[in-house]
Amino acid sequence: VPFRNEDDLVRWLQRRWPDRATNVRLGIGDDAAIVSVTRGSEFALTTDLSIEGVHFRRDLHPPRAVGHRALARALSDLAAVGARPRFALVSLAFPPATRRSWVSGFYDGAGVLARRHGVALIGGDTAVAEGGGIVVDVVAAGEVKRGLALRRDGARPGDLLYVTGRLGMAALGLEMLKSNARRASTTNRRAEGGGIVRQALGAHLYPEPRLGTGRYLAAHRLASAAIDVSDGFARDLGRLCAASACAAIVREESLPLPRSGTLLTSSTGRPRQQTVREARLDPLELALRGGEDYELIFTVPRPRAGRLPRSIKGVALHQIGEIRRGRGLRLLLRSGSEVRLAPRGYDHFRRAR
Amino acid sequence: VPFRNEDDLVRWLQRRWPDRATNVRLGIGDDAAIVSVTRGSEFALTTDLSIEGVHFRRDLHPPRAVGHRALARALSDLAAVGARPRFALVSLAFPPATRRSWVSGFYDGAGVLARRHGVALIGGDTAVAEGGGIVVDVVAAGEVKRGLALRRDGARPGDLLYVTGRLGMAALGLEMLKSNARRASTTNRRAEGGGIVRQALGAHLYPEPRLGTGRYLAAHRLASAAIDVSDGFARDLGRLCAASACAAIVREESLPLPRSGTLLTSSTGRPRQQTVREARLDPLELALRGGEDYELIFTVPRPRAGRLPRSIKGVALHQIGEIRRGRGLRLLLRSGSEVRLAPRGYDHFRRAR
Repeated sequence: VPFRNEDDLVRWLQRRWPDRATNVRLGIGDDAAIVSVTRGSEFALTTDLSIEGVHFRRDLHPPRAVGHRALARALSDLAAVGARPRFALVSLAFPPATRRSWVSGFYDGAGVLARRHGVALIGGDTAVAEGGGIVVDVVAAGEVKRGLALRRDGARPGDLLYVTGRLGMAALGLEMLKSNARRASTTNRRAEGGGIVRQALGAHLYPEPRLGTGRYLAAHRLASAAIDVSDGFARDLGRLCAASACAAIVREESLPLPRSGTLLTSSTGRPRQQTVREARLDPLELALRGGEDYELIFTVPRPRAGRLPRSIKGVALHQIGEIRRGRGLRLLLRSGSEVRLAPRGYDHFRRAR
Repeated sequence: VPFRNEDDLVRWLQRRWPDRATNVRLGIGDDAAIVSVTRGSEFALTTDLSIEGVHFRRDLHPPRAVGHRALARALSDLAAVGARPRFALVSLAFPPATRRSWVSGFYDGAGVLARRHGVALIGGDTAVAEGGGIVVDVVAAGEVKRGLALRRDGARPGDLLYVTGRLGMAALGLEMLKSNARRASTTNRRAEGGGIVRQALGAHLYPEPRLGTGRYLAAHRLASAAIDVSDGFARDLGRLCAASACAAIVREESLPLPRSGTLLTSSTGRPRQQTVREARLDPLELALRGGEDYELIFTVPRPRAGRLPRSIKGVALHQIGEIRRGRGLRLLLRSGSEVRLAPRGYDHFRRAR
């Protein structure tokens, strides 16, 4: 057991995460955290599970990445509603044999991301569970000005469809981690000139929730609907369309795919240079189905599109299609033909990763 | 898999838990729930894990009880700070083979308790996890008037020490469930004249968080400190004293112990009448160490003690000791001798239940 008991872990966390936020009235160590909310604001609440064997693997993901990703998942939900994150509660259940360094690495990973976004870590729960894997739950609470929250169900036919950043990078990073296992992924991280390698591993291990973009869209009343890409672009776009009772068409040529640069892979244990395509990874498939991009998909009514900048806080915005009447998703290929785009992606209910 | 996919389960929950609360701006099915808070209020946030094998066993606890207890754990934390519960988010991870009836029973158990206390179930997360047990996380958010929240660290030497209801009943119920296993626990439930049996099983399977009591204490500024009994009376009293940097003495004769009535037990499978003592259960030990009572421990400065009623909303208040200078807990036995009371109880870090 890495900490003597639960109280010992709580004291460690209190030292690690002192309450500095002025609106935290009662932080870690009491029965509940007490926070105050600015007048005229509403509170956005989200909770996200991160489960060993489903959302992460201890042999692939370092503890700092597990902590970062667990919090990023929740912050990305706040980005999707345009909220400013204020508080988070991080809960951790772990088997008795878990090392103290794993537990502290995990909390550090969450702590660094929290500080970067001004999020106060104000509580959580802990348990030692025999016979199971590590389970994380992150609760994030944010503020959004009354009536300005973005939601999934506001898209209307004719609205333009956008996505932030780049799609498929996190899935590419995961493929690299999986195929190369430990040794080669270290090699990959060291690879000279391996820009895409570093980017893909970074996108997978340390994703950046698009908080600034979401807040900008909400504050300027630009978006009619928004959702974050957690389970794959096609699946999450399908959810936005289902909630808004409309259809969408996406242009392949406008999608920000992962660049088909050179990777270092080694299924044999010996590093070998390959391009994305040589590694039999289809950039389009990665972009459409790969999960955990934590980019934002959003829609903008045409009259407001002129007010939309090309990028927000350094994150590029790509106009990739539009909303239509009807149901379902369509993909306009570079060839000019239009095909049905199944709203599928990674689904925790279908297979464990 | 009991539901076709995650979206299918979310749609089922949306029908099951429609948003009726007027201050829920955005409920189940979006990226985050959006709620509004009354002016002049602060928000209390808490999150609690409930893990199969640690907090419940599928062979002992029916799914409705698992749902009820998971939410009760979180609501009890809100009771301990004197908050009025408003919203909850319920997350569930379960193995693929879990039956639909288990999942729906679980949510129903949480739903019934939520409705009874006016709590809107506004979101959560779901995952299907291979190779692990069921994991639940409940987030509860409540409101408390600005500055009135109860906390652990306000007890002062001379304050009187109180506990609500009755201690050790939930631990007694768990002992009955464990020793009797399935068949006999059904017998127990049917036992004629088995008032204590029903009470103990009820206390364990369907505990009632002391929300009314906590709110009353906060609203009338009666308590200087409060904590709920989740890990055992002695342990949680130890936490209150540690947070308040003081000691406490508890009188055995004033503790509301489980009554030593007749139980039906059958370790052999054959029902047999026994008293609590015949079953080698020590009522004092059950009261001091048994966890999950979800009663409130609180302290009252002497000048305010006269304003304290004998019961609040039907829940008896027992004056059981007082706060002293120094550190540690003492127990004044009926014999008149005073002994050290170790601040131990059930600790998830020490053994799995």
